[in-house]
Amino acid sequence: MSGLDTQLKVELYHVLDHGFVRLVDSMGSDLSISRAARVSYDAPPREEDGKLIKYLLTNKHTTPFEAVKFTFEVKAPIFVLRQWHRHRMWNYNELSARYRELPAEYYVPALDQITTQSTSNKQMRTTEQHPEANAIRKEIDMACREAFRVYKMLIFCGTPRELARSVLPLNTYSHMFASVDLHNLFHFLRLRLHEHAQYEIRVYAEAMLKLIEPICPLAVAAFKGTL
Amino acid sequence: MSGLDTQLKVELYHVLDHGFVRLVDSMGSDLSISRAARVSYDAPPREEDGKLIKYLLTNKHTTPFEAVKFTFEVKAPIFVLRQWHRHRMWNYNELSARYRELPAEYYVPALDQITTQSTSNKQMRTTEQHPEANAIRKEIDMACREAFRVYKMLIFCGTPRELARSVLPLNTYSHMFASVDLHNLFHFLRLRLHEHAQYEIRVYAEAMLKLIEPICPLAVAAFKGTL
Amino acid sequence: MSGLDTQLKVELYHVLDHGFVRLVDSMGSDLSISRAARVSYDAPPREEDGKLIKYLLTNKHTTPFEAVKFTFEVKAPIFVLRQWHRHRMWNYNELSARYRELPAEYYVPALDQITTQSTSNKQMRTTEQHPEANAIRKEIDMACREAFRVYKMLIFCGTPRELARSVLPLNTYSHMFASVDLHNLFHFLRLRLHEHAQYEIRVYAEAMLKLIEPICPLAVAAFKGTL
Amino acid sequence: MSGLDTQLKVELYHVLDHGFVRLVDSMGSDLSISRAARVSYDAPPREEDGKLIKYLLTNKHTTPFEAVKFTFEVKAPIFVLRQWHRHRMWNYNELSARYRELPAEYYVPALDQITTQSTSNKQMRTTEQHPEANAIRKEIDMACREAFRVYKMLIFCGTPRELARSVLPLNTYSHMFASVDLHNLFHFLRLRLHEHAQYEIRVYAEAMLKLIEPICPLAVAAFKGTL
Repeated sequence: MSGLDTQLKVELYHVLDHGFVRLVDSMGSDLSISRAARVSYDAPPREEDGKLIKYLLTNKHTTPFEAVKFTFEVKAPIFVLRQWHRHRMWNYNELSARYRELPAEYYVPALDQITTQSTSNKQMRTTEQHPEANAIRKEIDMACREAFRVYKMLIFCGTPRELARSVLPLNTYSHMFASVDLHNLFHFLRLRLHEHAQYEIRVYAEAMLKLIEPICPLAVAAFKGTL
Repeated sequence: MSGLDTQLKVELYHVLDHGFVRLVDSMGSDLSISRAARVSYDAPPREEDGKLIKYLLTNKHTTPFEAVKFTFEVKAPIFVLRQWHRHRMWNYNELSARYRELPAEYYVPALDQITTQSTSNKQMRTTEQHPEANAIRKEIDMACREAFRVYKMLIFCGTPRELARSVLPLNTYSHMFASVDLHNLFHFLRLRLHEHAQYEIRVYAEAMLKLIEPICPLAVAAFKGTL
Repeated sequence: MSGLDTQLKVELYHVLDHGFVRLVDSMGSDLSISRAARVSYDAPPREEDGKLIKYLLTNKHTTPFEAVKFTFEVKAPIFVLRQWHRHRMWNYNELSARYRELPAEYYVPALDQITTQSTSNKQMRTTEQHPEANAIRKEIDMACREAFRVYKMLIFCGTPRELARSVLPLNTYSHMFASVDLHNLFHFLRLRLHEHAQYEIRVYAEAMLKLIEPICPLAVAAFKGTL
Repeated sequence: MSGLDTQLKVELYHVLDHGFVRLVDSMGSDLSISRAARVSYDAPPREEDGKLIKYLLTNKHTTPFEAVKFTFEVKAPIFVLRQWHRHRMWNYNELSARYRELPAEYYVPALDQITTQSTSNKQMRTTEQHPEANAIRKEIDMACREAFRVYKMLIFCGTPRELARSVLPLNTYSHMFASVDLHNLFHFLRLRLHEHAQYEIRVYAEAMLKLIEPICPLAVAAFKGTL
């Protein structure tokens, strides 16, 4: 469902059927964390940095992790972005559907993702494929195709974009740039990698964890140790 | 489009076709602002408080306004909540469509609100009614009715709620509790009362301004003076 | 070291030698938390609210706790306020020493608080009284008296307040109004009630916990269960 | 009072008598702002980027400026850091005087900075040198030397560092790493470059503006146009 795009030689993972997450930019590294913790500009990398970083993370000395920053580009269904935007310590710049017509791209779950409603946890789905998965998949696809047909027709006949978009489904793909520091990214990942998180945001969390690992491997190792 | 619900004797304004905004709770008043500015617990109300509050607001001494807090209950279309949630200094508790099936309520604009796309400002609509407003209204209504038909059918046959909701339109009504302090509410209002803001969020801004006016009339008067 | 001031019949605890913390205002209660979690305006208090609140706290559903707000008035040594102000989700209004001359009040530790430097934890002190506690106490007192003598003299001869204050010691008492929501207060308390926290801020944390307990007893009970 | 340290070939300005501000790290540039505004990863630099950035700044489209990040190292008197830390959207890592003994460095104003208390603005000083500037300077110096003598003596005889530091004056130099995005840096600069800001923080603001100008010259030009 997600894989590093090696052809483009860029830091990008394809996620879901039309989504992706790309590492656009970053500032700092493991060394920035230990320097921030030591408040020391030219502290050299030391062998014990891994131990220090693990200590800081375990003991909730969170501010040194705020010294490392990332910017991601994300293409995801709107219902995923809705969950994402509840994290208020990120910076977001999202495409405006008031400004531009949205392309007809919407998320249709793969067959193995169409499972049944969990009864033990009211907000989750099970991992067992729904017997009618194929029919459900087609219903979702057709409903969205129909919604986009109406959307395009409304735009075509001069309906304001800000009103026409109101018929679009919640699985319409949108597009954003999102910046965050490592402390708040870890907080996001802890919640969104959790088995209670919805699969469709979990795959973005997994991709981001892989994207940042080469930049701050000691911090990521320490973080994984706390999961 | 909006009116104080005097029958219920509660602080509630009806907004749009099925929405509302209610003042659930508040802390503080004009006096809290002047006491915070003076860092003085038992300062009595003074005649010059109005002048002080105006001075603070004009000179961007913002922290005294953070001492006044409000909690609103809001029912609004999802595309309105999407704009709202970009304001990251609020506290939000929104209904989860993973947890509960959403009722079949969606926003259909009134005829006089169905105008034409602005060409001078790429993100706005004009104030001139669209010649086909009636047909557009019907198309929006039918498209959403159809989306909800599919949604209910998906739920009925055991599709997980978190997937079924993905076909719902962006004008589906959702529901939240939202807290904010007066400084950040003024910031919100300044942006969302602006003529460039979309009508469908402007009406919520107008209702909130009316709801808070009895609580801190001096601050609201000063704020209006800066618009 | 701290006790409820029953004479004044106000919600105030004396802390350290000249400090205090007072509950100035609050918004919400346990019921606000369960209503925010249920996104339901008129949900009645229920027996299972305590269980719900405990579940929310344990499972890090933090936003319902943001619906409860407090404003405290705090008089504390500047080195305590320096630690406090690192908590960036509070709202602060502090007395300005540029604006007003500060009274000659500074913190001198009680004898039993003058212990020795810990060697096992580089940032802490031990609980064992220093053999020269009495002499140390006098040195601290005299040094601060001397600093205030110079301060007053500088003010007297027309030195700008914003420069004169630069000679004042870090244990000078300052004064602030500070607002916070219950989620962020719990975060503060978790860190500042910890045995690694400095005693001089811990006593403020303890006083605040006692001040809020009557307002949201179920949430405080749940919080204590997580310590 | 401040000058680029060209010998070290590093991005550092000396500020006040012993302070400095250094640009440790940064992420992004003018191009990041226009790409964030356009939500477009590979948008090339365009001629009209300057116009776009000016438009965004003037019309308070603030989020694209949040995509640019800086980390500064700052050495400054504690009373300056106290003002700085009121800006809650920065990330701070400051030296702990609980953990380490502070070196005997404190700020003594230059003679031309020792002016008189303003009477027209209660929080400011005038620009006119105080007739007794020389004597005042010596009093400040002597009072701080005395405070550090007591501090060192207390440390020497085993007083806990967290208590000994309480006698140190507010002009003691401390040391921090501080990260911020360009939107919040502009907000800081707008307040702290203002003539009502205290000189001792204004010089840090001026140095930071010079440090970031080579990184995002179009944004800095637009910002200067709004001052």
